[in-house]
Amino acid sequence: MAGTDRSRTQIVGGPRIILVEPQLGENIGAAARAMLNCGLVDLALVAPREPWPNDKAQAMASGADVVLDEAILFDTVEDAVADLKWVYATSARPRDMTKRVLRPHAAVAEIRDNGDQQTGFLFGPERSGLSNSHMALADAAISVPVNPAYASLNLAQAVLIIGYEWFKAMADTPGHIKGNVVTHDKATKADISAFLGRLESHLERHGFFRSEDMRPTVTRNLRNLFQRIGLTEQEVRTLQGVLSALTGRGGSNR
Amino acid sequence: MAGTDRSRTQIVGGPRIILVEPQLGENIGAAARAMLNCGLVDLALVAPREPWPNDKAQAMASGADVVLDEAILFDTVEDAVADLKWVYATSARPRDMTKRVLRPHAAVAEIRDNGDQQTGFLFGPERSGLSNSHMALADAAISVPVNPAYASLNLAQAVLIIGYEWFKAMADTPGHIKGNVVTHDKATKADISAFLGRLESHLERHGFFRSEDMRPTVTRNLRNLFQRIGLTEQEVRTLQGVLSALTGRGGSNR
Repeated sequence: MAGTDRSRTQIVGGPRIILVEPQLGENIGAAARAMLNCGLVDLALVAPREPWPNDKAQAMASGADVVLDEAILFDTVEDAVADLKWVYATSARPRDMTKRVLRPHAAVAEIRDNGDQQTGFLFGPERSGLSNSHMALADAAISVPVNPAYASLNLAQAVLIIGYEWFKAMADTPGHIKGNVVTHDKATKADISAFLGRLESHLERHGFFRSEDMRPTVTRNLRNLFQRIGLTEQEVRTLQGVLSALTGRGGSNR
Repeated sequence: MAGTDRSRTQIVGGPRIILVEPQLGENIGAAARAMLNCGLVDLALVAPREPWPNDKAQAMASGADVVLDEAILFDTVEDAVADLKWVYATSARPRDMTKRVLRPHAAVAEIRDNGDQQTGFLFGPERSGLSNSHMALADAAISVPVNPAYASLNLAQAVLIIGYEWFKAMADTPGHIKGNVVTHDKATKADISAFLGRLESHLERHGFFRSEDMRPTVTRNLRNLFQRIGLTEQEVRTLQGVLSALTGRGGSNR
């Protein structure tokens, strides 16, 4: 079983996630879920502490069972990476070792440049992380940028960050349709809400909401419209003045 | 209590995370942990289903209690965003609404351009997500790029992705020290391991390891050195030939 199955070599669809000596079944399940969220399906387990298959992993995976069902067990990290050409080791601290250190987004850029094949990411045991011996098997180390004062990402979170960066790089999404964004003297949400509340009470009084059924939709559409503009403080004051004028309460605060 | 405390306005240090009607204390705790991982500390809770403070949230936060202790309760989303100038709504599906849709990295780029202040991210209830009424309060919607066939990020994971992108943008890390990366005909790890194994057994036979204490360190340093080169298949064959020649077994496979 372990260390002998090379049938996965031909599988395409993203890097292999290699969990080295994972301690808890729950964490394996949560990692599988994070993998599938990001379109990753190639899971390798090196000497998990609990017997495999594992009920707690299955329970935690909730819908990502396919990843667990296809997971392959290995006795050693060397076996798990044998058919790979690029290996990245995730570690908070590469110690006493000459090794390139990359951010996740830089690593996935390399992976994309390399044709997205025969690549794996090593993740160490929950408590201790990867040993120097395991680090030595890798082409480069990965350092996830996190708060140095609270850097303890759990296993599934670390897998999620790597998977997310991979998915983002592969999808190569342009990411934004940039509209006109007002940054100068932008109004607060309270200012806008105050205007909208006043507007709606006036509309109410004027019998604008003919049908009670339509009221929530109409109100929401109005609010969305005014939020979308990106109003400045001055514009809100102007609108308040407009409202006062239209409702016959004088337009002095325009 | 709820909706009245404006003292947080002056707090600096990243966007507010606003959990709208969160259902489970555990998820609030896990979200707080993900926040602190990314250096975020401003947590707002809008009408959580369970009483607050919540023991299960505390247990799950493990070390991120400071975020929970400082969390502020609000009755409505409008109250929670009242002092903000920019609000982003995380949602898998903005429905029937004209609204800019950004990727997380594009949203944090905007936030940085806007001076990283008075910004918040809305996260909806675990099951249902944000309502259209809540979406309407936002300047833009955020769509996290995930596998469309398995898009169900849990609450803490969604918070982690947003926080991670924010931290990355603020740290503005160059990310990689690009070395010479060989991509053409790169050797597999099995090829390299086979060479290293043979090298080490020869070294053993030749009395290279004078002290048993130093053996692990010396072996690891050797392995790290050869892994770091980025060997091609041809180079491994050459090295095997060199080894054969040096040990008197003929150099024909060079």
